[in-house]
Amino acid sequence: MTDKKDIANYFRELQNNICAGLEKADGKARFQEDKWERPEGGGGKTRVIQNGNVFEKGGVNFSEVYGPCPDFLKKENGITGDNVEFIATGVSIVIHPFHPFVPIIHMNVRYFEAGNTWWFGGGIDLTPHYIDEEDARFFHTTLKQACDLHSSSYYGEFKKWADEYFYITHRGETRGVGGIFFDKLSDNEEFNLESRFAFVKSIGESFLKAYTPLVEKNKKKEFTADNRQWQLLRRGRYAEFNLVYDRGTKFGLHTNGRTESILMSLPPLARWDYCPQYPINSLEDRTLQILRQPNTWIV
Amino acid sequence: MTDKKDIANYFRELQNNICAGLEKADGKARFQEDKWERPEGGGGKTRVIQNGNVFEKGGVNFSEVYGPCPDFLKKENGITGDNVEFIATGVSIVIHPFHPFVPIIHMNVRYFEAGNTWWFGGGIDLTPHYIDEEDARFFHTTLKQACDLHSSSYYGEFKKWADEYFYITHRGETRGVGGIFFDKLSDNEEFNLESRFAFVKSIGESFLKAYTPLVEKNKKKEFTADNRQWQLLRRGRYAEFNLVYDRGTKFGLHTNGRTESILMSLPPLARWDYCPQYPINSLEDRTLQILRQPNTWIV
Repeated sequence: MTDKKDIANYFRELQNNICAGLEKADGKARFQEDKWERPEGGGGKTRVIQNGNVFEKGGVNFSEVYGPCPDFLKKENGITGDNVEFIATGVSIVIHPFHPFVPIIHMNVRYFEAGNTWWFGGGIDLTPHYIDEEDARFFHTTLKQACDLHSSSYYGEFKKWADEYFYITHRGETRGVGGIFFDKLSDNEEFNLESRFAFVKSIGESFLKAYTPLVEKNKKKEFTADNRQWQLLRRGRYAEFNLVYDRGTKFGLHTNGRTESILMSLPPLARWDYCPQYPINSLEDRTLQILRQPNTWIV
Repeated sequence: MTDKKDIANYFRELQNNICAGLEKADGKARFQEDKWERPEGGGGKTRVIQNGNVFEKGGVNFSEVYGPCPDFLKKENGITGDNVEFIATGVSIVIHPFHPFVPIIHMNVRYFEAGNTWWFGGGIDLTPHYIDEEDARFFHTTLKQACDLHSSSYYGEFKKWADEYFYITHRGETRGVGGIFFDKLSDNEEFNLESRFAFVKSIGESFLKAYTPLVEKNKKKEFTADNRQWQLLRRGRYAEFNLVYDRGTKFGLHTNGRTESILMSLPPLARWDYCPQYPINSLEDRTLQILRQPNTWIV
């Protein structure tokens, strides 16, 4: 039988595998690791890559925290009783490439358990600075294949959830081309801990398959200083999303988490212009048009 | 008798005077104006300065919005009854200079009225990238002089409020060297609309007096590429404050305000490094030491 130790160990391995895969894709930079401990129990390993051939800044973080369940988590999860212990473990990834034609990638997979309550949550979404529709289709197809191994309804449901979640309301723009998002997946008539865990493993394993081909395909393209400026502007939007809306960031900042680990998701460099304008049908304008509505990438 | 039209007209004039003073301090760039209208009533004038001699990006915004009072504003202000009209008017300023030794400045002054309820709110605070204690004392002394014209308790009370408000909790740092902050100033035994308005006018008029001498003093200093990098990092903190904590920003983004006007406060360029380290007693280290606790600038 699977238990929480197996799940934490799987996430530990996932961090190792993804770091190895990204280092290979970069070809130069290595992840640097900072171990941290949580006074109340548990801790994590923050791994950051900087100034590589491909990756300007990125983090692949593992954490496993436990101890007495804080009241707000009991309340949020409808847990009653005294002396309830909790465990939360997961992997969180954001990678900002140098190259404006290589997309930003994000993934999070997590497990929570307290008393008799348990659930998995997570998501993976792609944020190209310039949208290449073929790349978006490839990315979504890879995620759909991982979903379809476990349920024919997963992809449709979780893709829709991602469109709603990865949305920058005050800009009227999706963050990127979306992906999948899911939360509080527990047991029901159809699924149990084993089958939910199997699904989350498939998502974890889809990360390198869905992302590294896009790095390879785009990293040698020529680009201009204007392309770079646009990239910095889109990174500004990314910072807006993470600081204003992202649940994990809010949760971390408001529960006295390790700030440098939480905010490794912020871009190495970002810009904000006032009311920038782009010529109709320019690459920038076309990307904005696509971001203004969720899209069906797989027919 | 003062009424809401006088107050809005004063804020309109204040925008003009401050823009003129800042253009003079810059010596090259001019503010560009965008007028906008609010479908439910009122509107504003956003004025942005970019790529000047001194100022990289900044905004001086005026707004006067009115109409049926939204429910959440009635609730927040304890207003009951149907068909209540409201008016909210004010000036909001954030200026990001090019030069790492010229500080970022922010001011906001505002008036709200609905039914029988009215109040003034506002604040002004200085965010030097490198803290010069003499500059901080000058800034606070100028604000104290404006406060002291109206009440001997204003400066002490509002300086403390600023220390609490302009605080980046997740970093354990004040945003800069503080200033003053006040909210919901209405009538009581000591003050009425006239005397509160007179105080807010003094604050408005202190803006150029408190800031432009600091521009003049610091704008010709030599600086290095490392100073610029540190400036971009401190601007990252500024973006964090505005997106995570700033009430005006949150209010605007969550009430479907004009996003480009609200987010003119964000820096033209900002950076985030992972766990940067600075030598003990370097200028950067000394600034961080000072930011880690509120300071008494006037003995």
